[in-house]
Amino acid sequence: MHEPWKVESRETVFKNPWWNIRKDVVRLSNGSTYDYFVNDGVDGIVVVPVAADGRFMLQRIYKHGVGEAVLEFPMGRVDAGETPERTAARELMEETGHAVELEKLGSYWTFPTSSSNRMTLFLGRNARKVGEPEDNPKEQAELGWVTTEELRGMLLRGELASLLQMGAGYRALVALGL
Amino acid sequence: MHEPWKVESRETVFKNPWWNIRKDVVRLSNGSTYDYFVNDGVDGIVVVPVAADGRFMLQRIYKHGVGEAVLEFPMGRVDAGETPERTAARELMEETGHAVELEKLGSYWTFPTSSSNRMTLFLGRNARKVGEPEDNPKEQAELGWVTTEELRGMLLRGELASLLQMGAGYRALVALGL
Repeated sequence: MHEPWKVESRETVFKNPWWNIRKDVVRLSNGSTYDYFVNDGVDGIVVVPVAADGRFMLQRIYKHGVGEAVLEFPMGRVDAGETPERTAARELMEETGHAVELEKLGSYWTFPTSSSNRMTLFLGRNARKVGEPEDNPKEQAELGWVTTEELRGMLLRGELASLLQMGAGYRALVALGL
Repeated sequence: MHEPWKVESRETVFKNPWWNIRKDVVRLSNGSTYDYFVNDGVDGIVVVPVAADGRFMLQRIYKHGVGEAVLEFPMGRVDAGETPERTAARELMEETGHAVELEKLGSYWTFPTSSSNRMTLFLGRNARKVGEPEDNPKEQAELGWVTTEELRGMLLRGELASLLQMGAGYRALVALGL
């Protein structure tokens, strides 16, 4: 019952550097055909930075998708030819001026219903400031640091932006034995 | 620093029943303009069903976005005019033939970088079979039930499909005091 659907035809219907949507005409098990749209866009990373004092880094960052600032662990898109590890280190430095020791916690589908992209989760231990963030008008972020108990309260109250971010936060707590 | 970007112009560039992508030409804080694409698609729900015996329902369901079956708590799209509660009850009945007592755990952005959609998370207590799932060739799913310890192991090993699903699972455990 879990054989992949037979794809009768495939064409790209919307493409730019962030989106790459294809239309698959698929043949279903009952013989009918169906138009299905999948975004083969960009892979991503999320990193949960934790400082030597045990506090977690969060960003309040403007997201134009929702037109407001949201609370998130740092995220980024994996550039062509880049490893997720490299992306995580680069994004964290560019956005926050911090270095970390990366520990990969897992690799997941971003949104399997409609995207073929992957999202890799890292814990970033020993987060420390080593430089200045880049001045990027597209990434307007404020940094904050929260204790384990504060993070737990934010997760309980749903103050992080997305369930993706909730998953990152809870999984990081487990990785730290908290 | 978190004022919404000024939108100079807006046009719909890709639209069908599942996608609704607009191109915003935005004016950044440094005065330059930038093309930004946002999907105003469909809102969704995810429900974590738990039976009277304490076991959690998971589905192994084919997702054409990734071309394989993945492990997930039941999800669904909110139809026009529907409340998320109604969607959760309807999808669970259609996909699994189960009824639950719904408890809303939170409402989140689906993916705030590039989508304006919302995702509502429910706990579904007292999950019990009350009918037969619909025979839908587009939703080929197998049901399974796992204990708290089994679910914890699956979350640790990253066996659920996405960080969204990881967030749902961990948040449901917290709601149940587990």
